[in-house]
Parts: sequence; structure tokens; C-alpha cells
Amino acid sequence: MGKSRLEAFSDGVLAIVITIMVLEIKVPHDATLAGLAPLVPVFLSYVLSFVYIGIYWNNHHHMIHATNRVTGRIMWANLHLLFWLSLLPFATGWMGENHFAALPSALYGFVLLAAAIAYWLLQQSIIADQGEQSILMRAVGGDWKGKLSPLLYLIGILATLLAPWVAQAMYVLVALIWLVPDRRIEHTLQMGADGSPRSNATTGHQGSREDA
Amino acid sequence: MGKSRLEAFSDGVLAIVITIMVLEIKVPHDATLAGLAPLVPVFLSYVLSFVYIGIYWNNHHHMIHATNRVTGRIMWANLHLLFWLSLLPFATGWMGENHFAALPSALYGFVLLAAAIAYWLLQQSIIADQGEQSILMRAVGGDWKGKLSPLLYLIGILATLLAPWVAQAMYVLVALIWLVPDRRIEHTLQMGADGSPRSNATTGHQGSREDA
Amino acid sequence: MGKSRLEAFSDGVLAIVITIMVLEIKVPHDATLAGLAPLVPVFLSYVLSFVYIGIYWNNHHHMIHATNRVTGRIMWANLHLLFWLSLLPFATGWMGENHFAALPSALYGFVLLAAAIAYWLLQQSIIADQGEQSILMRAVGGDWKGKLSPLLYLIGILATLLAPWVAQAMYVLVALIWLVPDRRIEHTLQMGADGSPRSNATTGHQGSREDA
Amino acid sequence: MGKSRLEAFSDGVLAIVITIMVLEIKVPHDATLAGLAPLVPVFLSYVLSFVYIGIYWNNHHHMIHATNRVTGRIMWANLHLLFWLSLLPFATGWMGENHFAALPSALYGFVLLAAAIAYWLLQQSIIADQGEQSILMRAVGGDWKGKLSPLLYLIGILATLLAPWVAQAMYVLVALIWLVPDRRIEHTLQMGADGSPRSNATTGHQGSREDA
Repeated sequence: MGKSRLEAFSDGVLAIVITIMVLEIKVPHDATLAGLAPLVPVFLSYVLSFVYIGIYWNNHHHMIHATNRVTGRIMWANLHLLFWLSLLPFATGWMGENHFAALPSALYGFVLLAAAIAYWLLQQSIIADQGEQSILMRAVGGDWKGKLSPLLYLIGILATLLAPWVAQAMYVLVALIWLVPDRRIEHTLQMGADGSPRSNATTGHQGSREDA
Repeated sequence: MGKSRLEAFSDGVLAIVITIMVLEIKVPHDATLAGLAPLVPVFLSYVLSFVYIGIYWNNHHHMIHATNRVTGRIMWANLHLLFWLSLLPFATGWMGENHFAALPSALYGFVLLAAAIAYWLLQQSIIADQGEQSILMRAVGGDWKGKLSPLLYLIGILATLLAPWVAQAMYVLVALIWLVPDRRIEHTLQMGADGSPRSNATTGHQGSREDA
Repeated sequence: MGKSRLEAFSDGVLAIVITIMVLEIKVPHDATLAGLAPLVPVFLSYVLSFVYIGIYWNNHHHMIHATNRVTGRIMWANLHLLFWLSLLPFATGWMGENHFAALPSALYGFVLLAAAIAYWLLQQSIIADQGEQSILMRAVGGDWKGKLSPLLYLIGILATLLAPWVAQAMYVLVALIWLVPDRRIEHTLQMGADGSPRSNATTGHQGSREDA
Repeated sequence: MGKSRLEAFSDGVLAIVITIMVLEIKVPHDATLAGLAPLVPVFLSYVLSFVYIGIYWNNHHHMIHATNRVTGRIMWANLHLLFWLSLLPFATGWMGENHFAALPSALYGFVLLAAAIAYWLLQQSIIADQGEQSILMRAVGGDWKGKLSPLLYLIGILATLLAPWVAQAMYVLVALIWLVPDRRIEHTLQMGADGSPRSNATTGHQGSREDA
């Protein structure tokens, strides 16, 4: 079972999620700065969520790149991740419209937490299929980011009981931590490069060159 | 006529269907739990429909994988399936907003029934093109799931006359039955593996290896 | 310049157009048949437009398949076609909400007419690039469908001045004429098949087999 | 790291952006010309933005075609460009609904300016990765369009203080300047063609032919 349709479907869903979030920024009827002002928190929520979807797309890209085959379990783990990410537009809109109030901020953190757990489950299902010696397993290693993020989300969710701005700070902090793409996988992939074909793009070409 | 664009278009439509359904979960103006409460049935409908689209995408993936070529009839059978699935966001929103009332629950079941019939027609049009000895024909076999599902949908639709919750139970039951991906095709595909190239990804590589 | 991204982008736009049209079928607040009744014309408009997008996707598929390369002119001719098709959801919604009234029916016909002209322009720009001897040129031949359709649209548009139902009849008639995929191209392609690779999928494999 | 998913994701986002803009053309309840009249500026804004997205897709296509590999920096530079383009539907809707009033026109220009800067940053990050001798570097050359556009946008934004129609004229002017696809890259690519495979599609085939 090839992984190209899994990538295509995930790319499609993420591209739509990232784009329909902008529909929550409702066009004001007023052509003045006063009409634009209430949209500032909606816009800031959008920026944060855009960055998060970008991070997920980026790391998903790396993870599937280090995956050899797609099983039924991996497919459903992937759909589970997409499910939580598909709720981000709703959580973003609710948090933005209510100017980062406590409950919407907690829900936003909950969706991020659930997506993080779903990502971890997907990673585990790939490693379970491909063994302890898989590229992904070696690449992920200690995975301190994956372990720290849920903790920071939890702190953020609990912090909404006292001061919602702490939650926002946590969500921004996690985004900053992840903004650096997962160089571990990239690095391990390069180290493991031994001339064998890795992707459709290079396969035919390398094969032909070897023939020559 | 290649099948890659059929897959790409179907993936696109399914990715959009799965994502615009979330737009039916309207962002409440109220930042309280009371504001969130009426959305619970809308959310539950969304989860059910998300799972159904996931199932269809998964099985569609397997079915097209076992297809050799795409004829005009297969293309239209595929569009017919996408038509009914594209109505799922509407049916989901209506059922969710009306808290699983009788008529919306019956309509939801009707859309599921029509999609199931469309899927069966697509399967038949592929088998008709590729003969009784096709991989798909051998893989589908008795197809008890495909025969049981429409029956359960029908029971669900009729049950809305008496008790709508029976309909919901039927729809959840069918989803559970299908959650297991169609291992028959996966199994038959592996059994039939005789070294001949199966997908773009492996073609070039295997070809090159055979040259060496 | 490859044609895969042109196909991917067109598939994406058509998949979204076909799916956002369903958003015009607004979920009624009423869980009764009376609540559903006013949606019947909206639904019928949706069915007609779905079939039209399906036809365009299908024929676009065939046309690009018979295209060797993509020039700047072809790209813009393609975007021009997508522009008019992107207006179909608006025209569909307006016609459906106003129960096939005269002016919305005329606008709907106008969008179909403009799309037909855009399709013809795209076809011409491909033939202009690939010469009189191109597969597409031989395949299109007399192109009576392409010549008849704009005429029928025009009759439909003018008929809205007297009786809008004549317009609907014309639009349904053209859809029926086109429902048969463009077998001419399919046929010419098969006739021209002389063992040379036609698509990415078969290229690597055939090449390798020839080596063996 | 392959560039196919970067292309697929960008195509997806641009296809959705171009299509959801049409949702801002709200279906009027009135089936008369009077009901359609207020939509004329919304429609004109849509045409302008459609052309802009078409230009960006077109040039993005050429730029990525001249790119050898995708680094983390290129990925984020690409997401940054998509971020600004994703705001175009909002800016388009606001400008159209307010009949090209001063402030919405200025905001529209600001989004275009930010997108132009993001495009330039993406171009720089690709050149930085691939060196002064890269195909892209040679192709871009003086890049007078890339340098003139931000200036014209700035003039447009400032002009909204005096006469918003000057801003519209500037935005239309820049669109016209860019409507011609970036022939420089196309030209340089052809000049640099020395028989080595350039894309997946041709790789296997050419390689095989060389073997023969």
C-alpha cells in the first residue's frame, strides 16, 4: 500500500484547514479602522493557528518521508490526527471572537493537546510497524519536544483558571520550540543514505545511472 | 486512461467534504459552557460523519489500488459516489442542529444508503471492466459487509418513525463494522504478488534491480 | 514545463468548486418536511451543476492527456476556464434560491456559455501549440458538441425572456449531450498507440522491460 | 527532501484561496438586476484577486521548477508567502463590499505588498541555498518586475489618502506587468538543457533511452 495517497489526502486536509480558518475573519461592513479593530484578536489567533498547521505539515512531511509502508493502523492514526487538526478552525474562531477569554483559550489548548497526542500515536504506530531499527525510531531519539509540548499545553489549559494570557504564552512558546523543523530525521536520513533509492523522484534516475 | 487523476480528484473532494463539515459547527458568541452545550449533538454528528468519510476514503483507496484502468463508466460511477458523499455535510448539519430528530436522522440514513449503493455500483463497474478473474473480484468475495450495510441503514431509516436513537445506533454499528479496512483486498493483492510491478513507486526500482 | 501541476491545480479548483456548491444548500432550522421543501430547487440546481463540473473535469482530463507540453498561453487559457467555472456556485445558488426565476436562469446560462467559450479557447491554444497533426486535433475533428452547446445556451438565455423552463430544458439537454465522455480522444489515443510511453506510470516500466 | 509535497501543498492552498474568494460574492435574495447591482464592485475585486493568485501560481510554478531541493528555510519562506495570499479573500471581500473605499483599498495594497516581499524572500532563500550559479539566479537576473511592483503598491497605498481610484489603477497595472509569465526562467532552463533529466516524468524515459 503506497504512501502517496496518504500524503495527498493529508496535504489536502491541512491545506483546507489552513485556508478555511481565514473565513472566521468575517468581513466587517464598516470601512473604518473602528470596524477593523475587533478583528485584531481574531487575526492574532489566525496567525498562531497558521503557524501550528505549518509546523504539523512540516513534521508530518518528515515523518511520512521516513516511513516505508502504510498499514491500516497507520491510516487511521493519521485520520485521527487530521480529526483534531480539523477542529482547530472552530477553536481558533471561538478564542479570537471572545478576545482570548478563559474557556475558549482552554478549549484551544485542549485541541492542541489532543493533536499532539494523536501525532505521538501516529509516530508510535509507524515505529511499531517498522521496528526499533527503523529510520524514524533512530531519528526521533529522545523526542524531548514531543514530551515537553503536552506538558506546556496542560499548564496552559490549567492557567486559564487564573490568567488566560499565561495560556497564550504557553501556546506561543510551544510553537516557537517546534518552528525549527525536525532536523533529527533529516540528519538521520542523510547519514543512512547508502545509494539505495529513497523516493519516486530519485529512483528511476539513480537506477538508470547505475545501469550506465 | 490513468487512474492517478481519479485518485487525486476523489482525494480532493473527500478532503474538502471532511473539512467543510466542521464549518457547520458554528462558533458561538458566548464564551461559556452554556454557549458550547447546544453544539454537543453537532459535534457528535461531525465525529460520526468524519469516521464515515474516513472509511470511504480508506476503502476507495484499496478499491482503486486493485483497479487496472479507468473507463468512462468507472469515472461517472466514481462521480456518483462523490455526489452522495458531498451531501453528507448538509445531512450532518441538519441532524446535529436538530438534536437527532426523526426526519433529519432519516435523511442522514438515506444519504448513507445512497452512498453505499453508489459504492457498490462503482465496484460493479470496475469488476465488469476487468472480468471475473480480476484482483478486485477475488478480493471482494462474498462481500457480507457491503450487503449488510444497506439493510442496517434501511432499518435505521424506518426506525426514525418510532425511535430516532435506534437509527443512530444503526449508523454507529455500520461504522464500527467498516472501521476495519478491507483486508480482503490487501490480502489478495499480496497473494497475487508475483514480481510484476504494482505501483509507480516500485516500478522503476524493481525494473532497475532486475537489470542489475 | 510539465503538465502535472496544471492537472493538480485544475483538479484542486474543480474539487473545491463542486464541494462548496453544497454550502449553498443552507441547513434549515426546522426539522420538518416543510423546512426541507424550499430547498428542492436549490438541490436540483446543485445536481445540474455537479453534473456540469463532472463533465468539465472528465473532458479536461482527456484534453490534457492529449497535450504534450504546457506553455504560458495554455496556462492562462486554463485559468480563464477555471475562472468561469468558479462562478458556477454563485450562479447555482442564485438560480436555486429564486426557484429558477428568469434573470438568475439567464445568468446561469451566461456562465455556462462563457465556460464553453473558455474551454474552446483552451482547446485552440493547445492545438495552436502542437500543430494540425496533434493527437488532440485529430481527436476533436468536427467537434459538433463544442459547436452546438453555445448555441443551445444562447437559446436558453434568450428563452428566459419568455419562459424560464425552456432555459432549464436547454441546460439539461446540453448536459445530456456531454455526459458521454469524449470517446474521440480516447479512440484516437488508442489508435496512435505504437508502444511508445504515454504516461509517467508506464514510462519507467516499459523502458526497463525494453532493456531486458 | 523532495519538492513534490511543497508543490502539492502550495497548489492546494492557492486552489482553495482562489475558490473561497467567490464565497464573498454573497447570493442576493432578490432575483432582479437591482439585487445584482451592489455585487458589481465585489465581482470586480474578485476578478483582480483571481488574476493575482493566477500570477502567483504561475510564477511559483516556474520558481519551484528551477529549484533543486527544499530546505527547512525554503519551506517556511513558502508558508510565509501562502500566509499573506490566504489573507487576500478577506481583503478582497472588504474592498469589494465597501465599493473600493480608501481604507479597504489600502489594506488590499498592503496584503499585496506583503505577499510581494514574501515572494522575494522565498526567491532569496532558494538562491541562498543553491548558489550564485543556480538556474534561478541566472534566470531572475535584474528582476525589474520584482523591484518595481512593491514601489507601485506603495504608491497605491499612499494614494488612498487622496484618491482610492489611483490605488486600483496601480494594482491593475502591476497585474498587467506580471501577466506575462516569467519567460526568463523558461528561457534559461531551455538554454541550460544539456540532456540531463529535469523532471520525474522524463527521467525514467530518458534514462532508459540512453541505455538503449
